[in-house]
Amino acid sequence: MVSTALLTDHYELTMLQATLADGTAGRRSVFEVFGRRLNGGRRFGVVAGTGRVLDALADFRFDPAEIDFLRSARIVDDTTCDWLADYRFTGDIWGYPEGELWFPGSPILRVDSTFGEGVILETLILSILNHDSAIASAAARMTLAAGDRPCIEMGTRRTHEEAAVASARAAYICGFAATSNLEAGRRYAIPTAGTAAHAFTLVHDTERDAFTSQVASLGSDTTLLVDTYDTAQGVATAIEVGGAALGGVRLDSGDLGDVARTTRAQLDAAGNADTKITVTSDLDEYAIAALAAAPVDGYGVGTSLVTGSGSPTSGFVYKLVAREAGDGTMLGVAKKSKDKASVGGRKTALRRLNSKGVAEAEVIGIDITPRDDGDDRELMVPLVEQGKRVHDATLHDARARLQASLGELPAAARRLSKGDPAIPTIFEEG
Amino acid sequence: MVSTALLTDHYELTMLQATLADGTAGRRSVFEVFGRRLNGGRRFGVVAGTGRVLDALADFRFDPAEIDFLRSARIVDDTTCDWLADYRFTGDIWGYPEGELWFPGSPILRVDSTFGEGVILETLILSILNHDSAIASAAARMTLAAGDRPCIEMGTRRTHEEAAVASARAAYICGFAATSNLEAGRRYAIPTAGTAAHAFTLVHDTERDAFTSQVASLGSDTTLLVDTYDTAQGVATAIEVGGAALGGVRLDSGDLGDVARTTRAQLDAAGNADTKITVTSDLDEYAIAALAAAPVDGYGVGTSLVTGSGSPTSGFVYKLVAREAGDGTMLGVAKKSKDKASVGGRKTALRRLNSKGVAEAEVIGIDITPRDDGDDRELMVPLVEQGKRVHDATLHDARARLQASLGELPAAARRLSKGDPAIPTIFEEG
Repeated sequence: MVSTALLTDHYELTMLQATLADGTAGRRSVFEVFGRRLNGGRRFGVVAGTGRVLDALADFRFDPAEIDFLRSARIVDDTTCDWLADYRFTGDIWGYPEGELWFPGSPILRVDSTFGEGVILETLILSILNHDSAIASAAARMTLAAGDRPCIEMGTRRTHEEAAVASARAAYICGFAATSNLEAGRRYAIPTAGTAAHAFTLVHDTERDAFTSQVASLGSDTTLLVDTYDTAQGVATAIEVGGAALGGVRLDSGDLGDVARTTRAQLDAAGNADTKITVTSDLDEYAIAALAAAPVDGYGVGTSLVTGSGSPTSGFVYKLVAREAGDGTMLGVAKKSKDKASVGGRKTALRRLNSKGVAEAEVIGIDITPRDDGDDRELMVPLVEQGKRVHDATLHDARARLQASLGELPAAARRLSKGDPAIPTIFEEG
Repeated sequence: MVSTALLTDHYELTMLQATLADGTAGRRSVFEVFGRRLNGGRRFGVVAGTGRVLDALADFRFDPAEIDFLRSARIVDDTTCDWLADYRFTGDIWGYPEGELWFPGSPILRVDSTFGEGVILETLILSILNHDSAIASAAARMTLAAGDRPCIEMGTRRTHEEAAVASARAAYICGFAATSNLEAGRRYAIPTAGTAAHAFTLVHDTERDAFTSQVASLGSDTTLLVDTYDTAQGVATAIEVGGAALGGVRLDSGDLGDVARTTRAQLDAAGNADTKITVTSDLDEYAIAALAAAPVDGYGVGTSLVTGSGSPTSGFVYKLVAREAGDGTMLGVAKKSKDKASVGGRKTALRRLNSKGVAEAEVIGIDITPRDDGDDRELMVPLVEQGKRVHDATLHDARARLQASLGELPAAARRLSKGDPAIPTIFEEG
């Protein structure tokens, strides 16, 4: 694999250079990833990207190509280049598994290492978690709104080509049934799906020719796009061409609720009770919820998903929260910048559940393990121990984790309207 | 290079399969990329990503690894796999060069090829142009607001790790002076820059130790981050440690205008008239404009830039606008979907300029070259001819293009407030 080591900020390496020179690069340190607030008045956030962080960490090495660049561009000095050429992360990383929920202050990832080993991971870890969790946090609201109806991820064309692959992955964690993205199919074994574009109809002499060709080539269980010219006529032609076995039709324009009702009636009258209706066209969680009473069988979601439905990034930060003092003890540290003060100390977290299994609080212990009152659940799991990856949760594990964690939340957490976090965050000190 | 061919949607390949079977895959076709509207009430958009499209096209090939996936996942049939294994784009592509402005309906990219060769490029072309142009359209407003003061791109941590590299590139096209992203430095030779993080101060026993270390390692022309504890004290310490030759200080919290004024006075009183002030902290074009009267020497811009400042995608679509008819002639085609109708026909575009060189309209000819009234400027350039890349504009060319095109706009185009496009779009038919 190509090295991921330069997917980082210039200052990570110059800070390394200065601390190597003065000796503080070797101080034991604790870095923590957390978000100060939930975006957009949401009730919960979803952690995604942890697995990709671990993949990227395995490829985070300074090979000769990277070192040559650093030397020739004079980013850092020779001592630092030599140190980087030998770099392998040898510390520990704990964190929330993918699919877990997060709330303000949740210690989503914790890096225990020397300062030098940990500081240079900041940018890459944040890029992955900020992106993937933003997509997941939107996606989970969409699948909640869709209920039992499948959502298909179709947003590739509206985001960066590699962000699209990561978006498909994050959406799948959140219960999406499939993606249109073939690379996500190859890389992560996510089911892929697709219908047809308007161009397919337009390249044929008639809509009937297009439908006939699609059914002949892909089988009658295919989904025909019926709104290129006149939707009612398109549905009629689809029924004639596909027969009772026609898999589905896709509606991509107009008032989707109205058109779905008309189309359902038209299909049923023709004996196509099993032909499904998929809707697409700028859907977000609110539009999905608004279609709950319409006869829709599935949702194709694009732009809104891959742009985080109004919140394209998570706002996670990566902060030094503790470090070795001159006497060898560990010392909690925090900046005091106005409006951006952070909480020092090594954190551990659990979700407080009542006796009925309903979540009541995110409890974060500062330099202690928080008190478990009997029904609580520990949130952090070991990801890397002494540099070795020890966590290999699958996307199916992550899907299950999300469903279980959502199931613990009080009912109000499912509301799409803006509000406070579903549960409060409580800090406990030793 | 790794193949880019699977960075695409499932349906592109199934449409190919059906059209290969019925023969329409061989019909000559014209596809066009355009946007229906400018996002967020902006006055203009900026085209970026064209060069990346050409890079990606060169790597768009179905090697055995891609074919194996398509076969094993049963995405398409053997005939289609065989066709794809031999695929090389052999058509023509014209488009707007990077740095050019776009308006509603501008034919930003035009692909002339067979249907089969052109349809499978849709998703990848849109991913790149939608992303990069969204970042550029935000970035250009930021550099306009900043005037002569340099902007530095620092958003890597708030977007997907590869989108970050593309964002740095798009920002550079729009006049940003540098990026924090090292991979953008390596891949595109964009200048990189950086200061230090709060963690650097916190890992040291005192702020003075941190500043002393940074100046010793990086020289006194470095920029010190002064707001970890108390900013006034931080500035005082920075002056003592760095002396009159201190390069700069960075302010990352509080009311930046107020803090900049106080800090400037403090620096000047100490004889540090040449020490520059860089501000960071959730800056966008509006915050940059609001700081115009403050004694700020440079802006570091992060989250807002890489998320398109409220418009993270461009909304470009890729539509079949003409294709070969049964009799061999070319026929304009357009869908009639409600609210999404498109304009058929092969487009050519020019920017109408008055005798003083001021832009007055975006003139788009449908199946004709629009009439040049004497001072107009043609907008589309050849990018690929018979499959061969013929366009190699540098990022410096793109920077110059943007400045020249912005210089043509009427003054109102520089307004940050919401409004109509700076110039109207006029369609001319033969």
